[in-house]
Amino acid sequence: MKTDKKTILLTNDDGIDAEGIYALYRSFSHDGRFHIKVVAPNKETSAVGHAITVFRPISVRENYQEGEFFGYAVDGTPADCVKLAIGAILERPPDLLVSGINRGGNMGENIIYSGTVSAATEGTVCGISSIAISVDDLINPFYGYASEFAVNIAALVLKNGGLPSGTLLNVNVPSIDKSRIRGTRITVQADIGFRDKFEKRQDPRGRDYYWMDGEFIERNIGEGSDYNAVKNGYVSVTPIHYDMTDYKSMGLFRSWDIEKLK
Amino acid sequence: MKTDKKTILLTNDDGIDAEGIYALYRSFSHDGRFHIKVVAPNKETSAVGHAITVFRPISVRENYQEGEFFGYAVDGTPADCVKLAIGAILERPPDLLVSGINRGGNMGENIIYSGTVSAATEGTVCGISSIAISVDDLINPFYGYASEFAVNIAALVLKNGGLPSGTLLNVNVPSIDKSRIRGTRITVQADIGFRDKFEKRQDPRGRDYYWMDGEFIERNIGEGSDYNAVKNGYVSVTPIHYDMTDYKSMGLFRSWDIEKLK
Repeated sequence: MKTDKKTILLTNDDGIDAEGIYALYRSFSHDGRFHIKVVAPNKETSAVGHAITVFRPISVRENYQEGEFFGYAVDGTPADCVKLAIGAILERPPDLLVSGINRGGNMGENIIYSGTVSAATEGTVCGISSIAISVDDLINPFYGYASEFAVNIAALVLKNGGLPSGTLLNVNVPSIDKSRIRGTRITVQADIGFRDKFEKRQDPRGRDYYWMDGEFIERNIGEGSDYNAVKNGYVSVTPIHYDMTDYKSMGLFRSWDIEKLK
Repeated sequence: MKTDKKTILLTNDDGIDAEGIYALYRSFSHDGRFHIKVVAPNKETSAVGHAITVFRPISVRENYQEGEFFGYAVDGTPADCVKLAIGAILERPPDLLVSGINRGGNMGENIIYSGTVSAATEGTVCGISSIAISVDDLINPFYGYASEFAVNIAALVLKNGGLPSGTLLNVNVPSIDKSRIRGTRITVQADIGFRDKFEKRQDPRGRDYYWMDGEFIERNIGEGSDYNAVKNGYVSVTPIHYDMTDYKSMGLFRSWDIEKLK
């Protein structure tokens, strides 16, 4: 059966049961222009960063269903899901990967902890145009506008022949009704910061353990940043790449005579 | 007790029992100019990327000892170790963090999977000058020269008042004797690539599972890259930052009218 429909691979880090990926599925399905494949973790995997599973086998449950929602539930990380989808599960590579919708924003340097972004990074490494999308509300996220926006930006990327090699889009959407969204901004990654706090406790046998907690500290959330856009009611679209080379400091290190070290 | 000695925090992803971190400890200890603190995972945590532990408490075993080697063994990821060390275990922040010595190179985009690099990234996020160091040999790594180099570059960084805010150094050392090392190069992250392969099996109850495997594919390992330097007998020092914004593509996306999306 030949078709002009593009194939969208959906994944996330909140798990295949999460409301956010279901919202994406409904939105792409309702639009009608796409084939949809879902390969997602079988459980919540937030804050896994770009972990991959190399020391144990990864099980995959097919035919996961809830109503018309069909997908593959993977006992692994978001990056595992993408590797498996492209390398083993799907017959051919998808035209586009969309990761999300994450419950909670992924902005500033906090994207380094994000499974949602790491799935899109992995897609990019595998040569697939990839978009990560998050709603900036951990407690009571509103996915309505974000899922609509996801379809629109996916269509725009496909219309333009895909993303440049090595670049992904990190999208953050305010958790507000469409009528209150002020527009869309292309942004840079903010310098938000996070102050860790640890609560030290002792287990019944007297051994120390810690609970991690913390709070955001707003260092540089100036105009033009992802954080600034979202807090002001705009959708933030940040182009991200995985070349982490800090080109601008290379001259400094030459002046330190690092190359003379032996 | 007042002292001019600088404090070095050592961590890794191969675990506190690994030969690489012990080689670092010996080298810094032998040098005599440093206080050494060790906070490392209690077991091998390779390929965890920048995972952090948020859903369960993290236990810490103090007084881990082997000969004169003292440290804190953490039931968590490399990033957890750094957060815990700085936020809870150490009385004051260290002057420098050194993560490694990793068994196996961390070059090209494969650094996104690296716990060794993520520990140094976490140190940088926490405001600590941080260095990741790896020996490019998974099977039979030679730590001798790398541990010597680690002390020299640590001293150089401290002499220059620390690294620029937001920048870390990713060091990769050939697994060869000092006499065969050709020098040191400041490099950029190569575009190496990795082709995933999966072996599909069935468990005794007929359920599918996969083992992940793969091979490097050399895409762009041109002159000036980390990979090129190490393969030619040089120590590679790549300045890395966690601002992943792809500034050069922002104009392209403006031309796509992304900011007009609603």
